[in-house]
Amino acid sequence: MAAEEGQVAVTVSNKQVIFNNYVSGFPKESDMSIAVGEINLKLPESAAAGVLLKNLYLSCDPYMRPRMRNSSGSYVGAFQPGSPLSGYGVAKVLESGHPNFEKGDLVWGSTGWEEYTVSTEPGQLFKIQHKDVPLSYYTGILGMPGMTAYVGLYELCSPKKGEYVYVSAASGAVGQLVGQFAKLAGCYVVGSAGSQEKVDLLKNKFGFDEAFNYKEEQDLAAALKRYFPQGIDIYFENVGGKMLDAVLGNMRLRGRIAVCGMISQYNLESPEGVHNLASLIMNRIRMEGFIVSDHYHLYPKYLEMVVPKIKEGKIVYVEDTAEGLDNAPAALVGLFYGRNVGKQVVKVADD
Amino acid sequence: MAAEEGQVAVTVSNKQVIFNNYVSGFPKESDMSIAVGEINLKLPESAAAGVLLKNLYLSCDPYMRPRMRNSSGSYVGAFQPGSPLSGYGVAKVLESGHPNFEKGDLVWGSTGWEEYTVSTEPGQLFKIQHKDVPLSYYTGILGMPGMTAYVGLYELCSPKKGEYVYVSAASGAVGQLVGQFAKLAGCYVVGSAGSQEKVDLLKNKFGFDEAFNYKEEQDLAAALKRYFPQGIDIYFENVGGKMLDAVLGNMRLRGRIAVCGMISQYNLESPEGVHNLASLIMNRIRMEGFIVSDHYHLYPKYLEMVVPKIKEGKIVYVEDTAEGLDNAPAALVGLFYGRNVGKQVVKVADD
Repeated sequence: MAAEEGQVAVTVSNKQVIFNNYVSGFPKESDMSIAVGEINLKLPESAAAGVLLKNLYLSCDPYMRPRMRNSSGSYVGAFQPGSPLSGYGVAKVLESGHPNFEKGDLVWGSTGWEEYTVSTEPGQLFKIQHKDVPLSYYTGILGMPGMTAYVGLYELCSPKKGEYVYVSAASGAVGQLVGQFAKLAGCYVVGSAGSQEKVDLLKNKFGFDEAFNYKEEQDLAAALKRYFPQGIDIYFENVGGKMLDAVLGNMRLRGRIAVCGMISQYNLESPEGVHNLASLIMNRIRMEGFIVSDHYHLYPKYLEMVVPKIKEGKIVYVEDTAEGLDNAPAALVGLFYGRNVGKQVVKVADD
Repeated sequence: MAAEEGQVAVTVSNKQVIFNNYVSGFPKESDMSIAVGEINLKLPESAAAGVLLKNLYLSCDPYMRPRMRNSSGSYVGAFQPGSPLSGYGVAKVLESGHPNFEKGDLVWGSTGWEEYTVSTEPGQLFKIQHKDVPLSYYTGILGMPGMTAYVGLYELCSPKKGEYVYVSAASGAVGQLVGQFAKLAGCYVVGSAGSQEKVDLLKNKFGFDEAFNYKEEQDLAAALKRYFPQGIDIYFENVGGKMLDAVLGNMRLRGRIAVCGMISQYNLESPEGVHNLASLIMNRIRMEGFIVSDHYHLYPKYLEMVVPKIKEGKIVYVEDTAEGLDNAPAALVGLFYGRNVGKQVVKVADD
């Protein structure tokens, strides 16, 4: 096609973040390396029905840690050593062989950690319709993390007015939304995070009723007892391990736990034991794991709810932006130390 | 009343099983003692709206172990040291001050571990309508354990034809029914128990597709992998601890776990840790605890289903009967060592 139209495909440099090898313990920046290759800005024949993407934003997400393990144990495959990482991102379509997309479209979904990506599965990309919001939001509130908060809280936990909701990792990409959504539902919301700055954000920016720094608590169960003297109706689980144990000891009758993630466990060779599961019986608790991609059919409904709320300022979203692919490894690693304040995103290009 | 009618209240001896003191570790027969008191066979004024019961059968149930702990941690209160134990039983009404019952009625529900009990809460008793089945069944298949199997399997797990069901403590009061109910629903059913005799019972009497002796398995996860190469859709949890961990590693996508009990944990000072909870996320598993008494409104519906099946021989029920209150402590203790084969019941009197 390009040849017939007399166009010449341009070859440009393509910076990539390469996954070096499988990781044990906490990931380090040296588990990744920056490489600069070249790419012909034209869909190759092997991907004639795909799309060629220019990546604008990349998303750093906790679920990427299990993908760094051999035989990943994650619900998506392990990263390939020697190849670029992949993940969620926002991109511009430079060329499309797929009927749903055309040149110039903005999309979000699975892409590579590089400047340009040939996607052979564009069916998994979402075309961006609302452009009068920050584009980076499609790695967060308007993308996978937003849907995660929405599905986990509303679909799995059915919050009712006056219920007591606890969110761990509450200032993160998902947690800050869970708290705000629960407030919209009329709940009493407490969040925990790992620094005073984050705690302030929870209370002053996101409107949580209370918040605490879990690192300053010797006894998590006692802390929860203090913030929830009457117990917890809904727990949005992001961290696992000791926190889950403390929560199980503080749940109310007919409580619900949406199990979204267990970031505290991802860097351990073997996960911590959780001891208080008998609370599930005593308190008739439902605990349910979920994967957001099972629920993407609800995305239009979610957008309908959330976009007006963003525009009216009723929902806010805080991002922590790393500039450029060179800073992407540090941004991803930082996620597991809680260095990010808000949603960790990597800006790759302006447009 | 009795006086007006010219009757003389008879005083008889009342043998009781006394709870001596709070228990740590496995309960022992010496944690209970047999006492013989006297009872006036007439409702006292303090229980004028109650019923006077002659106990015929008493039920030995795992949930009684947590009640032996101070600040019980159970959903029912701790036993009172120096007083008789209480639990489920079948009894005859000798006198009633309650409009729902009259002299001669047979009932099942909460009663004392003694020959005669004054019940001040007869609202919690069920009048026995179907008498053409063994009366002892109302401590088992037609009582709390039957409802437990029914609610946990059908209401919480919605078994579908062809699904793979695993039951632990499978020859017990509840497990033997879960397996048979799952077979009726068209499932493939595997059970585990603690002796060859019980394994044979599961396969030959209850119609489980497969069964194994968990005590002979070095690696429970590997055993489950062997019996469920395709994974487990439904797990009926009776034991907790290591078994739960092994199951979590073998669940299928969208699996369901009904958490009925955790008998392996009840005698431990602190419960074992469960490590594989991340499987809840990966496999989108719902795990739900329940207390059967929340669901007793379904009892008539359950009877309608199960009574014909008993009469047609399509459901069988195996009981292990201890004769007389003197043997009740050993029967209860034996439950925690798996000495019972089938539902453990204590026969107190013929009628």
